[in-house]
Amino acid sequence: MLHGLDQRTASIYAPVQEGLTKVDDKLRSLAETETSPVQPLLQYVTDAGGKRVRPAITLLAAQFHPHDPARPIFMASAVELLHLATLIHDDTVDNSPLRRGRATVSNSWSPQVAVLFGDYVFATSATFVCDTQNIRVIRRFSETIMELASGQLMEYFTAFDASQARDLYNDRIYRKTASLFCTASESGAVLGEAPENEVQALRDYGYNIGMAFQVGDDLLDFQGDASNLGKPVGSDLLNGVLTLPTIMLMERYPNDDLVQSLFQDPSNDGKLQKVVEVINDSTILPDCEQVVQDYSDKARQALQVLPDCDPKRSLLDLADYLIARRR
Amino acid sequence: MLHGLDQRTASIYAPVQEGLTKVDDKLRSLAETETSPVQPLLQYVTDAGGKRVRPAITLLAAQFHPHDPARPIFMASAVELLHLATLIHDDTVDNSPLRRGRATVSNSWSPQVAVLFGDYVFATSATFVCDTQNIRVIRRFSETIMELASGQLMEYFTAFDASQARDLYNDRIYRKTASLFCTASESGAVLGEAPENEVQALRDYGYNIGMAFQVGDDLLDFQGDASNLGKPVGSDLLNGVLTLPTIMLMERYPNDDLVQSLFQDPSNDGKLQKVVEVINDSTILPDCEQVVQDYSDKARQALQVLPDCDPKRSLLDLADYLIARRR
Repeated sequence: MLHGLDQRTASIYAPVQEGLTKVDDKLRSLAETETSPVQPLLQYVTDAGGKRVRPAITLLAAQFHPHDPARPIFMASAVELLHLATLIHDDTVDNSPLRRGRATVSNSWSPQVAVLFGDYVFATSATFVCDTQNIRVIRRFSETIMELASGQLMEYFTAFDASQARDLYNDRIYRKTASLFCTASESGAVLGEAPENEVQALRDYGYNIGMAFQVGDDLLDFQGDASNLGKPVGSDLLNGVLTLPTIMLMERYPNDDLVQSLFQDPSNDGKLQKVVEVINDSTILPDCEQVVQDYSDKARQALQVLPDCDPKRSLLDLADYLIARRR
Repeated sequence: MLHGLDQRTASIYAPVQEGLTKVDDKLRSLAETETSPVQPLLQYVTDAGGKRVRPAITLLAAQFHPHDPARPIFMASAVELLHLATLIHDDTVDNSPLRRGRATVSNSWSPQVAVLFGDYVFATSATFVCDTQNIRVIRRFSETIMELASGQLMEYFTAFDASQARDLYNDRIYRKTASLFCTASESGAVLGEAPENEVQALRDYGYNIGMAFQVGDDLLDFQGDASNLGKPVGSDLLNGVLTLPTIMLMERYPNDDLVQSLFQDPSNDGKLQKVVEVINDSTILPDCEQVVQDYSDKARQALQVLPDCDPKRSLLDLADYLIARRR
C-alpha cells in the first residue's frame, strides 16, 4: 500500500494496488543499485512522494484483458520516472525553489546538476520502456518527450504575448500535460492486449482527463485555493503565461487591452489586480469550471465501449476525483 | 558528398558516402517538417556542420554482411542527433559562448531554451532509433544517454578534487565520450547483421577509438595547438578538471602538492603556469601520446577478425586519422 494516500485515492487504486507497490519498489531500488554521484540524487527524487496518478492510469488501463503483468508495471514505472524527469528540468527552467514543499534539485544542488541529472532520469525511464519489448509504446514514449519539451518551449516563447487564441492554448496544454496522460492510458491498453478500439477509447480517456487536469490547475491560479500551496493569485499572469480564464476575458472584450497593458508592464500590481478582479466579477470562472467538467464527462464517455468491472469503475471515479480535489 | 571535408576524410568515408548524404538529408529535413517554435532551433543546430565521425562509424560497421540498408541509416542519424543534443546541454552547463565558431543555443537563445530544446533533440534521436525496429540497439541507445549524463555529472562533482586516480579518469572519459563511439560501432554491426563475435570486435574498436579521441583531446589542452581554437593552455585545469597529463604528474610526484595547491587557489595564474611547465619539462606529454597510440593500436587490432574490404580499410584508416589530425 502506498503511503500517504487519502481514502478515496486508495479505493480508486485498489484494483492495481499490488502493481503500484511494485512500481514504487522499482523506483526506490534504482537508488539502491546506483553508484555515486547519481545515487543521492535518485534517492532524493524518488523519496519525494507524489500521488502516482499516471502509473495508476497505466495499470488500470491494462486490466481489461489477460496479459503479461510485468509489462504494464515496466511502463507505469517509466511513465512516473518521465514525469519526475520533466519536473527536474521544468523547475530548473522556471528557477523554482520548491516542489512539494522540498527544495528542487536545481535549488538544492545546482542548475547544472539538474540539467544533467534530468537527462539521466529521462534516459533511465526510456530503458524501463525497453523492458516492455513493445516498439509501439517505445516510440510513443519518445514522441511524448518531444511533445512535453515542445509544450514547455511554446509556453516560454509565447510568454507576455497577449495575441494567443484558444486553439494555441489547447495545443500547448495538450503537449505539456495531456500528452503524458494519453501515453499513460494508451500504453497500458496496448500492453494489456486490448483490441484497437479499446486502445483508442483509453487514449481518449487519457487525453480528456489530462486536459481537465491542466485547465483545472490553471483555474486554481485565480481562485487562491488552499491547495494552491501559497502561490499568489495571478502568478501565471505575472509570468506572462496566458491560461483559459484570461483567454476568455480577451474573447469577451476583444477591444479592451487590459491584458496587453499588463504584459507591457508586468510588475504593475494594480494592473494585475484589475485583470483578476474583472475575471472574478464575470461568469468566466464558472464557465471555465464547465470546460473542466466537459473534459471530465468526455473522459467518462470514452470508456463506454469497455465492459463494466472494477478497473473501469476506478477510471470513472478518477475522472471525477481529479477535478473534484481542487474544490 | 558532404561539404567541407578534407581529402583524407572524404576517402575514408567513400564506402558510405551515399548513406552519409542520406543521414545529412534526414537531419536537414527535420527542420523543414517542424513547426514553430522548434523549427528555427533545429535549423540552427543541423546547419552547424561537423565531421559526422560517429554516423560514419555506424555506417562503416554495418558494411560487412548483407542487410536492410535503411536501418543503419536511421541509427547513424540517431547517433549524430544524440551527439548534437549532448552538445546543447553541455554548452549550457559549461556556460560556453561558442561552439564551432558560432554562438551556442544557450548563448544565442537562453539557457532555458537550451535545456528544453536539448530534451527535444534527445527525444527526436530516440524516435530515429525506434525506426531500426531493433530492441537491442534501442536499449543500448538509452543506456548510452545514461552514461553520457553520468560522465558529465562525474566531471562536475569531481571538479577541483585532486585525489582522483587514473581509473576514475578512465571511467569518466569512457562515459562522456567513448560510450557513444562504442554504441555507434556496435549498433552498426548489429543492424548490419554481423555475427556476435564481429559485433564485439566492432564494439571494442569503438571503445578504443573513443578513448584515444578523448585522451588526445585532453592533451591538446597542454599543447596550445592551433586546432585548440583559441582556448588558453591549461583551461581544463582552470576549470578544476583533472586529465591524464595532470594525473600522471601526481602519480610521478605523489608527495608534491602542486595540483592540490592550484585547486585551492584556482585563479592563481602563477600556480597554473607552474603545473603546465612541470608537465612540459617532463616526459609526460610524449607518454600520454603513447597512451593515445596504444588505444588506436588496440582499435585496429580489434578488427583482425573481420575480412579485408574497403569498409575495414576505412575503419583502420580512421583509427589513425582521428589521432593524427591533432598534430
